[in-house]
Amino acid sequence: MRNFEYYSPTKIIFGKDTHKQVGEEVKKYANKILLHYGGGSVKKSGLYDQVVNSLNEAGVEFIELGGVQSNPKLGLVYKGIELCKENNIELILAVGGGSVIDSAKGIGMGVKYDGDVWDIYNSHKTIRDQPSLPIATILTIPAAGSETSPNTVLTNEKTLIKTGAMSKYVRPVFSIMNPELCYTLPKYQMACGVSDMLAHTMERYFTNTEAVDYSDRLLEASMKSIINMGPKLVYNMQDYDTWANIMWAGSMVHNGILGMGREEDWASHDIEHQLSAVYNIAHGAGLSIVFPAWMKYVYKQNINKFIQFAVKVWDVDLSYENPEAIISECILRAESFYKKIGLPIRLSEIDIDGTEFKAMAKRVTEFSTVGNFKKLEEEDIVQIYKLALK
Amino acid sequence: MRNFEYYSPTKIIFGKDTHKQVGEEVKKYANKILLHYGGGSVKKSGLYDQVVNSLNEAGVEFIELGGVQSNPKLGLVYKGIELCKENNIELILAVGGGSVIDSAKGIGMGVKYDGDVWDIYNSHKTIRDQPSLPIATILTIPAAGSETSPNTVLTNEKTLIKTGAMSKYVRPVFSIMNPELCYTLPKYQMACGVSDMLAHTMERYFTNTEAVDYSDRLLEASMKSIINMGPKLVYNMQDYDTWANIMWAGSMVHNGILGMGREEDWASHDIEHQLSAVYNIAHGAGLSIVFPAWMKYVYKQNINKFIQFAVKVWDVDLSYENPEAIISECILRAESFYKKIGLPIRLSEIDIDGTEFKAMAKRVTEFSTVGNFKKLEEEDIVQIYKLALK
Repeated sequence: MRNFEYYSPTKIIFGKDTHKQVGEEVKKYANKILLHYGGGSVKKSGLYDQVVNSLNEAGVEFIELGGVQSNPKLGLVYKGIELCKENNIELILAVGGGSVIDSAKGIGMGVKYDGDVWDIYNSHKTIRDQPSLPIATILTIPAAGSETSPNTVLTNEKTLIKTGAMSKYVRPVFSIMNPELCYTLPKYQMACGVSDMLAHTMERYFTNTEAVDYSDRLLEASMKSIINMGPKLVYNMQDYDTWANIMWAGSMVHNGILGMGREEDWASHDIEHQLSAVYNIAHGAGLSIVFPAWMKYVYKQNINKFIQFAVKVWDVDLSYENPEAIISECILRAESFYKKIGLPIRLSEIDIDGTEFKAMAKRVTEFSTVGNFKKLEEEDIVQIYKLALK
Repeated sequence: MRNFEYYSPTKIIFGKDTHKQVGEEVKKYANKILLHYGGGSVKKSGLYDQVVNSLNEAGVEFIELGGVQSNPKLGLVYKGIELCKENNIELILAVGGGSVIDSAKGIGMGVKYDGDVWDIYNSHKTIRDQPSLPIATILTIPAAGSETSPNTVLTNEKTLIKTGAMSKYVRPVFSIMNPELCYTLPKYQMACGVSDMLAHTMERYFTNTEAVDYSDRLLEASMKSIINMGPKLVYNMQDYDTWANIMWAGSMVHNGILGMGREEDWASHDIEHQLSAVYNIAHGAGLSIVFPAWMKYVYKQNINKFIQFAVKVWDVDLSYENPEAIISECILRAESFYKKIGLPIRLSEIDIDGTEFKAMAKRVTEFSTVGNFKKLEEEDIVQIYKLALK
């Protein structure tokens, strides 16, 4: 196990009706805020009105900026930064899923950064821990884990580069998580969220760090829970208990605590980011396509880790004399899980062909190899895209 | 799952050599501190000198108070409060295990409390979130989880009452955890620590709250890890990797995060506290005696939960047609685990007879029933002590 530091001060307020406390909670930090959200769904569902009421009751002044799209765009972040500066905003309240929260984090850092905010994202990890306006969230889509994480990902719509930044200052000061707010999500979006949180767990699980048995067990428990609970929502999107478990799992697997002392991988995320930047597909759907292909390409790197994954997570019960058969079966089960919740597992299913493979692989590896379980170069990425094709 | 709030801002600094950063870390919070520790072991091991060097190098002034005993006593806490007040102490650095940290927390709250600090402990939970001087720790015994928890337990050596308090203000501002510091522990103390952390997990696991599948899985993963790793230390007390996993598990199972959304039990802790208060036995050894007896007494409350525990934690592989056989086997395995790491499982093994059962049971239930999985009254406690006898 490696040395590590862990610090996660986000206050989590979890459960039924908790979003109604938002005004009172915000008031502890700020008198004037930016209310940031996405499309029409928060208005249609009535959430917007409830938030506004709560803010008004608490005497919190706000201006608003809606219109965050999935794969959130740099353009809107620039707009948010302007708004915050003009209005002396003290905190940004993101009401939505990971895209809205990530956009809020971009705005928050941009306000405090003396230059183009894109530098922070595009700096290939040289700008770390950029100060930010405080961020708070009401989470409506369990998926990205951004409600407790120090991470944010943005897409530059001009260059088609999608990339992330990390700062301890963008960990939300509080996050309100009410599973009831998920009832009105489209099923496909639920599935994409489940895929994203499963991916966050796998990115941490596949490591070459030795002697991380305890976090291995916690990650396996998380993967099994996500795999068992996800499909229940396909049958009943109003299942409070399942949403509550899924929502909590989504935060747990991405607040950092389950990856402590381990080197993490993140190749599949990097490989996927190009897909969603170029084709504007949902991140979770990109991951359900990329991850099986990545597994096929890298498993020989550490056969025993993959056997453990197959046996402990996917309950594969075949003879250990043929490890390849165990691993093939486990990848089949993963694919079958994605199909069960309604996600694609091949690029051809969503009409993507090989035209851009070379260009995307080049962008993925522009500054370095990606991944740690196996370090991947441009040609490796092309091969993985090809394995994902059909 | 129940609604909950979670907030755990302790910064964890984990790994080899990390204790040498203590001065620099303390300096962020305070210029003058109380250095609090136990007996001679921190001096014998050289840790004391390293801490003092680091504090001196960082220019941190300190006064010191050693002599914390296991089952830490109120008397020393009074002395610490005096010292802190006289010397305008700004932070208390606890170097040791749960006893030292709990004692530090008592002192920290006492300094800020206008009255007898024992009120806070003896108030039967009416004084919550008492302000405190900041607490920081260097952990040397993975067990109590006090290094990240809001809890503290003290013994009033005059009345023989051992009881706890809880305040968000005593969660340490930082905790340094270097597994190497555990190498010199006596084996028995290692075993008691392992028993304590297993107990912290079981106290959360046994609940009547429904639909807590995800935290059930995390708790099972934690119990399995503790059960698998504990015995490895019996054979090699210098096994860094095992200590690292055990130490991290000890914090994880008691920082609160695995109990979110669940009603917890805590009867066995309350029942044990009387044993260690009256007979001054190690808390972990009291728990290895009380927990099997508690299981025998309460399992009928929720047979399915106990079957799940037997199957998922203890790998009992018997026919589901006879649940009682499954549960008996699981309790046998738990007892066998405790024996394997060198702990007693019956009171008679440590020369405790039934003389005090009635009086202890009366004190345990003086203000209310204990436990939530099954609410226990005075007579129930007597029965559990009897089951623990031989």
